[in-house]
Amino acid sequence: MKAEIIAVGTELLLGDVVNSNAAWLSKELAAIGVDVYHHSTVGDNPARIQAVIDQALQRADLLLFTGGLGPTDDDLTIETLADYFKTPLISDPASVSTIRKIFEARKIQMPERNLKQALKPEGAETLHNPLGTAPGILWAIPPEQFSNRTTSALIATFPGVPKELYVMWPQARDFIQREQQNAGETPSVIETLFLTFFGIGESSLIEIFEKNPPLQALLESANPSVAPYVGKSGEVKIRIAAKAATAEKAQTLIQPVKALILEYCGEYYIGDGSKKDGTVALDALVAQLLIDRGLSVSVAESCTGGLVSSRLTDVPGSSAYTMLNVVTYSNIQKHKLLGVSQTDLDRYGAVSEAVAKQMAEGVKRLSGCDVGLSLTGIAGPEGGNEHKPVGIVYIGLCGINGESFAKEIRVNPRHGRADVKLLFSQHALNILRRYLQQLGLPGVT
Amino acid sequence: MKAEIIAVGTELLLGDVVNSNAAWLSKELAAIGVDVYHHSTVGDNPARIQAVIDQALQRADLLLFTGGLGPTDDDLTIETLADYFKTPLISDPASVSTIRKIFEARKIQMPERNLKQALKPEGAETLHNPLGTAPGILWAIPPEQFSNRTTSALIATFPGVPKELYVMWPQARDFIQREQQNAGETPSVIETLFLTFFGIGESSLIEIFEKNPPLQALLESANPSVAPYVGKSGEVKIRIAAKAATAEKAQTLIQPVKALILEYCGEYYIGDGSKKDGTVALDALVAQLLIDRGLSVSVAESCTGGLVSSRLTDVPGSSAYTMLNVVTYSNIQKHKLLGVSQTDLDRYGAVSEAVAKQMAEGVKRLSGCDVGLSLTGIAGPEGGNEHKPVGIVYIGLCGINGESFAKEIRVNPRHGRADVKLLFSQHALNILRRYLQQLGLPGVT
Repeated sequence: MKAEIIAVGTELLLGDVVNSNAAWLSKELAAIGVDVYHHSTVGDNPARIQAVIDQALQRADLLLFTGGLGPTDDDLTIETLADYFKTPLISDPASVSTIRKIFEARKIQMPERNLKQALKPEGAETLHNPLGTAPGILWAIPPEQFSNRTTSALIATFPGVPKELYVMWPQARDFIQREQQNAGETPSVIETLFLTFFGIGESSLIEIFEKNPPLQALLESANPSVAPYVGKSGEVKIRIAAKAATAEKAQTLIQPVKALILEYCGEYYIGDGSKKDGTVALDALVAQLLIDRGLSVSVAESCTGGLVSSRLTDVPGSSAYTMLNVVTYSNIQKHKLLGVSQTDLDRYGAVSEAVAKQMAEGVKRLSGCDVGLSLTGIAGPEGGNEHKPVGIVYIGLCGINGESFAKEIRVNPRHGRADVKLLFSQHALNILRRYLQQLGLPGVT
Repeated sequence: MKAEIIAVGTELLLGDVVNSNAAWLSKELAAIGVDVYHHSTVGDNPARIQAVIDQALQRADLLLFTGGLGPTDDDLTIETLADYFKTPLISDPASVSTIRKIFEARKIQMPERNLKQALKPEGAETLHNPLGTAPGILWAIPPEQFSNRTTSALIATFPGVPKELYVMWPQARDFIQREQQNAGETPSVIETLFLTFFGIGESSLIEIFEKNPPLQALLESANPSVAPYVGKSGEVKIRIAAKAATAEKAQTLIQPVKALILEYCGEYYIGDGSKKDGTVALDALVAQLLIDRGLSVSVAESCTGGLVSSRLTDVPGSSAYTMLNVVTYSNIQKHKLLGVSQTDLDRYGAVSEAVAKQMAEGVKRLSGCDVGLSLTGIAGPEGGNEHKPVGIVYIGLCGINGESFAKEIRVNPRHGRADVKLLFSQHALNILRRYLQQLGLPGVT
């Protein structure tokens, strides 16, 4: 089956909105074996929309529209489709009721023109929109209505709002897969899982694969396929993709592969994701580890200026494990508040293993928390030198029994200060994660 | 002049890349009076690219291509254009030399196939690419070569890499404007400026306009036009757009309007931007105000967990004005470290005006900084009640002479905890901004 994605909206042609829907839908269509050969964008103009429909029908079986489902006179997608196919519009009672309820819930009088959004061409199925007043349609137009088709032409319409498109997609996907079967196509689904790793580079991760024949074999497997990617914020990803008749069957191919990979690389594993460029929330992971163990942490930061603390408190319920964090930006405050030795500050400098260790010990003492975590480094763009370049950080940890250590980490400073701060915070949370995981759960040996 | 933007690349149709170039080019074309009626995306397939060219020529005068300029066999834009117009390809010596130099600088042997990138159709001008090995072309094909045209058909090609497109655009714009004049069109430029305001809602800002006839008149003016927008992170924007023969002339229309608006709304003004959805960096603005005045600030945070501190240290050179910030998440630490009265904590609760004031005083005392800033609020999703709902925050400030105050702010908690934290941090930085601006500069009265 061939598809064309058609975005309707003058705001797209003025450049006020980037059309991210076309890429999103393309990925979903690829996953169910539908080929996309064209994307088109057209303004809110009935004649031009008709011309685009006309042309798309010559080169595709499935036309997916985004946008133009609003209540105003500028929103023309449904009317123009009905006109094009010379089909009357009828009001869908279920949609009318949904739209009325949305206004009632907001305690706003419904403008009459919103009822327009409940119209659909006779014969089309309603594509429900649980988030807004713009339902879509799913419409199979039989081949008899065309001079040059042997299969139905399929129409699906979605609102331009990405979140609404995303939740409406599964119903449309079911419709498309049903029509694929009607057209005699073998159904197939591609499921994808991205395993996320932190604290190891892409090439080192690949080395583990190359040194271990069972993993090496995975890299050469066609289905499921396994491929590494560099992710964001210091993460490395392994994509596992499997093709099968159903999503469930694809998952039965994916899960043993995941288990095998984690057997060898589990210590760097921080979670799963569905996107190549998505990041895994190390803060939420650490929060859960702290809560599971009934432990609290206190952070002393320098170069990251409070970012680690802020990330730890991004998680709802963080008062269970955070009481006091400090940002000791100046040397004086490192000494005064955290008790870092003035001699060591003078001898080794503020950015040093000795100072990181003492900051972690000091903040644990000051706060009375179970674990102390600290960072001192050079975020740049100024302040680096040959021995301590921009991108260096010492991360200290003082554990539940008062034992402490500090680790030197170097990150690539190329993307600037804010990125360096983020990478430093990732490494600090990762060191805390490893410490907590290695502690294990209370009562479990 | 009518334009069509054509993106070439199978990766776009697979959904691996979002086509942001079309929106970017559309905005630039609108600014020089070129109408864009269609965007198209097509894969790396010569026949389909030819069909798209054919169709675009029927509805547009200017075809802008992005993508397909790379060195591999999949990169087909230039070859397909030459084929379509039956024009031989010639090698451009300047491009050959640029490409060779790029490889020399990287100390990499140039693969022979990169020379393909120096090819252009005879008669086309080279569109130089200072960032990469893919130059574009600018090509005016005279009307005599068509049966149905009275003006030239114009072709511009760009690489798919957005950064390269952006730097190559000015040369293409000059070419288009020259051709607009050749076609007898009056040149025109639209310049746009977004004034950004914080600490006032969109409707309150509009009320100021409505109450003051000189501002009210602006809202009805066609050129320059003035319109309000809700921005991100609590910002409100006023867009001033002016159309004129040149950018300079457009600016002479914009600047007096800006001055007039700031006369009435200056106290909420935090800066200029070029985008509707761009935010102004309140942190950088506050940093500059502190540096100009030679003052330091210390922050005591609760609900924001270190975010204000982190934002203050996002600015390079922040050690000039930050020495110590603390996150006193628990009541005990508010009392112990900052000296907040236990009686007041018990009587008014941690989220209260009295506690915010004492936190600001306490952190100024603890750090020895010139100004103390504090936040205590409810970021949610839990922890709110009828009197102190999620989204409430008290922001305290203790000034250079020890005088202190606290202000209650309520933000909309709809977008979740991270957004609430960000809005709280915006308000805190804004209160600090207003305090510092009202202090004035040392030596200036």
